[in-house]
Amino acid sequence: MTQTIAVIGGTGNEGPGLALRWARSGSYQVIIGSRQLEKAQRVADELNARLGSETIHGMTNPEAAAAADLAVLTVPYNAHAATLESIRAGVHGKILVDVTVPLQPPKVSRVYIPPGGSAAIEAQTLLGEAVRVVAAFQNVSATHLSDPDRPIECDVLVCGDDKEAKIEVIALAEAAGLRGLDAGPLANAVVIEGLTAVLIGINIRYKVKAAGIKITGLEQE
Amino acid sequence: MTQTIAVIGGTGNEGPGLALRWARSGSYQVIIGSRQLEKAQRVADELNARLGSETIHGMTNPEAAAAADLAVLTVPYNAHAATLESIRAGVHGKILVDVTVPLQPPKVSRVYIPPGGSAAIEAQTLLGEAVRVVAAFQNVSATHLSDPDRPIECDVLVCGDDKEAKIEVIALAEAAGLRGLDAGPLANAVVIEGLTAVLIGINIRYKVKAAGIKITGLEQE
Repeated sequence: MTQTIAVIGGTGNEGPGLALRWARSGSYQVIIGSRQLEKAQRVADELNARLGSETIHGMTNPEAAAAADLAVLTVPYNAHAATLESIRAGVHGKILVDVTVPLQPPKVSRVYIPPGGSAAIEAQTLLGEAVRVVAAFQNVSATHLSDPDRPIECDVLVCGDDKEAKIEVIALAEAAGLRGLDAGPLANAVVIEGLTAVLIGINIRYKVKAAGIKITGLEQE
Repeated sequence: MTQTIAVIGGTGNEGPGLALRWARSGSYQVIIGSRQLEKAQRVADELNARLGSETIHGMTNPEAAAAADLAVLTVPYNAHAATLESIRAGVHGKILVDVTVPLQPPKVSRVYIPPGGSAAIEAQTLLGEAVRVVAAFQNVSATHLSDPDRPIECDVLVCGDDKEAKIEVIALAEAAGLRGLDAGPLANAVVIEGLTAVLIGINIRYKVKAAGIKITGLEQE
């Protein structure tokens, strides 16, 4: 049976590109979630027009979370806690993939570690043990994601405390055309989140648009 | 005039390979530092034998730091504070390159953030403003460093609060056959240090010996 993914806050920078790639893979049903139903439906319509189908639906965030098998959270950090509260009931018993990067504007190229240790740990603390939080996709540039035909030179480092959940998220990365790698426990998410601030700084300093990272040395020598 | 580099704790895993590469580049004089003079001299002799020259010298850590223009600290985290105390006078007014990764055995694949925020920040706090601390080289596998002819697929992410010091350290990376990249302020070192724990975990999980990282997207498109 096809899994249904809800992209919570899916009308922002990162969400539509991921939604498009997942819908296009044919392996997932996709719902775009937003605080405003109209906005979610408009983005879903735009993505369907690009796909030439009607496979993506728009819903409010709580409805999207409730309707899906798995939720992917793509909101700015300042909306993180409030959005999690709004989907708490809907994600009960499910996997939540947290894409959030705790940035502190205006110094977005400086690593910021939030009070809870990392956005992903804060999500796990807020949602409790009934939700398996997995941190992933934070380092993938939205610039490249939005073109579904573009190969992306960036690995997806996947952190979480549940091995089976990580396997599902690694499959999600592959469906989006990316290599997913098990990067250890959820405690390691602080590094993957912070790496995004480092990459933003590299974009600025080296005048590029979409610095990413690849893990080397994986081919056995 | 040729700069002199002291590799403090240079008899361990990471130090000899870096020392060998810097001496071999012809751009630097190199001193191996150790707590024990004999050990420092023995490793210097071994490296000189490999180089076919007498360019590397062995000294105690405090002497090495005092004799050099720039010091590179390559000690296990449990020796970090004590070693810094021992070289404090010698590095006054100089650049200290901190290669230390705060690992907490036995869980060396789990990111550990030390009380001071990162090893590099702890070094800066301990040494004070008279020393320019730059964090670098933490992600480069000792396995690959020790063979000076081996090309290494790993970037050196360089963090520090002094731009000129970072330029010198990026040149050090290049002299060792690596690409150095400005990764932002010293506050960002927490991420680069922690990435080493992530890479250790990837080595274990994917049964490889020397996972590394490359920054992608730097070629302007």
